[in-house]
Amino acid sequence: MQVTLVEKADQVMPPFDIEMAAVIKSALEQGGVDVRLNTGVEGFELANQQGNGLRVLTSSGVIDTDLVILALGVRPETGLAKAAGLQLGPRGGIKVDAHMRTSDPNIYAVGDAVEGVDFVTGLEVLVPLAGPAQRQGRVAADNICGRPSTFRGIQGTAVVGIFDTTAACTGETEKALLRQGRSPDSFHSVYLHPGHHAGYYPGATPIHMKIVFDAKNGRLLGAQAVGKQGIDKRIDVCAMCIQKHGTVYDLAEAELCYAPQYGSAKDPINVAGLIASNVLHNDAPLACWGSGSGSAACAATAAAAKSGTAIRQVVLDVREPDECKNEPIIVDLQNQGRPSESIRIPLHTLRERLHELPRDVELDVVCRVGQRSYYAVRLLRQHGFNAKLLSGGYLTWNMKSKAALSASPPSKM
Amino acid sequence: MQVTLVEKADQVMPPFDIEMAAVIKSALEQGGVDVRLNTGVEGFELANQQGNGLRVLTSSGVIDTDLVILALGVRPETGLAKAAGLQLGPRGGIKVDAHMRTSDPNIYAVGDAVEGVDFVTGLEVLVPLAGPAQRQGRVAADNICGRPSTFRGIQGTAVVGIFDTTAACTGETEKALLRQGRSPDSFHSVYLHPGHHAGYYPGATPIHMKIVFDAKNGRLLGAQAVGKQGIDKRIDVCAMCIQKHGTVYDLAEAELCYAPQYGSAKDPINVAGLIASNVLHNDAPLACWGSGSGSAACAATAAAAKSGTAIRQVVLDVREPDECKNEPIIVDLQNQGRPSESIRIPLHTLRERLHELPRDVELDVVCRVGQRSYYAVRLLRQHGFNAKLLSGGYLTWNMKSKAALSASPPSKM
Repeated sequence: MQVTLVEKADQVMPPFDIEMAAVIKSALEQGGVDVRLNTGVEGFELANQQGNGLRVLTSSGVIDTDLVILALGVRPETGLAKAAGLQLGPRGGIKVDAHMRTSDPNIYAVGDAVEGVDFVTGLEVLVPLAGPAQRQGRVAADNICGRPSTFRGIQGTAVVGIFDTTAACTGETEKALLRQGRSPDSFHSVYLHPGHHAGYYPGATPIHMKIVFDAKNGRLLGAQAVGKQGIDKRIDVCAMCIQKHGTVYDLAEAELCYAPQYGSAKDPINVAGLIASNVLHNDAPLACWGSGSGSAACAATAAAAKSGTAIRQVVLDVREPDECKNEPIIVDLQNQGRPSESIRIPLHTLRERLHELPRDVELDVVCRVGQRSYYAVRLLRQHGFNAKLLSGGYLTWNMKSKAALSASPPSKM
Repeated sequence: MQVTLVEKADQVMPPFDIEMAAVIKSALEQGGVDVRLNTGVEGFELANQQGNGLRVLTSSGVIDTDLVILALGVRPETGLAKAAGLQLGPRGGIKVDAHMRTSDPNIYAVGDAVEGVDFVTGLEVLVPLAGPAQRQGRVAADNICGRPSTFRGIQGTAVVGIFDTTAACTGETEKALLRQGRSPDSFHSVYLHPGHHAGYYPGATPIHMKIVFDAKNGRLLGAQAVGKQGIDKRIDVCAMCIQKHGTVYDLAEAELCYAPQYGSAKDPINVAGLIASNVLHNDAPLACWGSGSGSAACAATAAAAKSGTAIRQVVLDVREPDECKNEPIIVDLQNQGRPSESIRIPLHTLRERLHELPRDVELDVVCRVGQRSYYAVRLLRQHGFNAKLLSGGYLTWNMKSKAALSASPPSKM
């Protein structure tokens, strides 16, 4: 059986940032799905005279198939509400207050047809999820029965299984924050790729994780993760942290279950918090991962380019020669005021080769996942170099490269 | 291979409350381990003249074996600290302040040998766990390097695998609170036994969960869970909630990952919070589950018995006849001012049989897991009955019965 997924957007799973969606797309492809992005469906025909089969007309050619599943999203059915004269909100859902009361004080509304308030940003959102819907029902019932209670808003915590891969998210993505008009220099994003449990215990699988946080106070704004195991657990912990207005420092200090088959003494949650804390303390500030990503780091790079105060940027790859021989040069990704030079010095020889490194440049340090580059950044900054971290290393670069590829539409087949 | 576990205490796994430990003991037994509680090891001998084998002398007989594993707990090695003249704390560990500094300002100490502060109670504790140890190391390093940082204390979050079962906990147990001298009427405990994911998706396995919370403000004090899947996830969410001084209302309102293979629209975390909120709102107050358990509910029952104001207590079992025909009468467990009567009326016939129920008694309502008894308690209270919930139903009763059995030492074999 051949399955083809046709998607008009440049990514699958819009609730995720594009580079996280690239991991999901890979999981679909590994499961045998032919994923065609930037491809609009234009119509359907019978595939042949006998009428047994369908032909799907797309913007990049036809696909003959036996079965079509339409997954076109969710829109609120507000016909009844409109007929009753109820007010709708800016997103087209039924407008309700925090007590789930509509513009008619005798009518309450809950669920997928109502607009909610984004818990993190305070903006109106339409989030058709079962969890918030059932909590809204309880709030409405409380109020109807005379117990004043309020709905605290929606975080958008969600999870999906893709064959043996799980993807989950809570709170804001980089994309959502920018779409809502939030200033890109007001938040950071960091990446990590830890094992889902201690590496010395067999069977650890990587978690590809990204957290987004406030650049000033470290408040956790959102988290996304994709991997085979332990994904929903980490996102649920982030969801509770966001619910309690927690920060990346709280993630760093979290005391979570640790036995080797369940986690690590430094759980992925702790590691995410520590990486983010290092950014906020300026211990390991972030370099920009190329245009449109990296949030505050890229905003600073773009601003410097615009004002003519840009510093020459050089990528420093601290991996071992064996690791990088088949890897493309990282600058391929950099397409907007990004480094055109790269230097390779393995971490273990860096200390004696400091004299080879240029001063008066920004050294954007990279390794495979971000641990050795962290050590290198600390070493370099203590020696007075302007060193920054390419967060999450080559594994992040892989995700971002795939995302960059999918941003260019396919040619007509 | 026959494995025998010999334990001097009346339960395995002391960090858990005894009825939670009863589930762990069952998991050990299902894995073929012969668990002997209340049994002290008194010595070892060679099993025979040939010297191939050991004889373990216990307080209840001898066990011949090929291999003995001693798991006697952890005590801090403070020899070096004492020799250096450092102050020790009340629990025998090295005394440190929140900066991990010992009584000698030039010496820092971290890890299993130091005393920490219990994050929930503020009391000194000795908790030899890797997670806190690594965070203490970071705090000490920060301070040594001139960055003031403090260690926030230890929650005691821990997890263990027992064959295919997982047991985890965070924060305080009922036992620990009572041992620390906390008044039993200052906290509640509730039980639940939900599936680890939505019941309509195949493969859901039960989570046996208990949370302990402040009777006044609902602050979450501790959580324990045992089951086959999804255990560490729920305890980690509770750990973050405790870290952020969260309440049971926060658990009720948590927005967690939901897809049928991962959780439920009402996740076990939400259900725990809702049950607890119902107690605090007096919608479904708790009945005492027999002596030494139930915390505030049992304290009230005991106080009433002492002052001569005890109300006659009657167990109302609302399960279907088919479910209870092989079940012992629940009053077997009740051994201190507890009900001597029981009535069986299935929930679906309760509304038309209200006239059969006595007034002027306390109706302690029970079902299998606590859902139908909740409906019954609400119905009864709305009709003016003094109805209370036996939290977690017969599944809790099973755990408590096993725990009660293990409290009586075995006879000499």
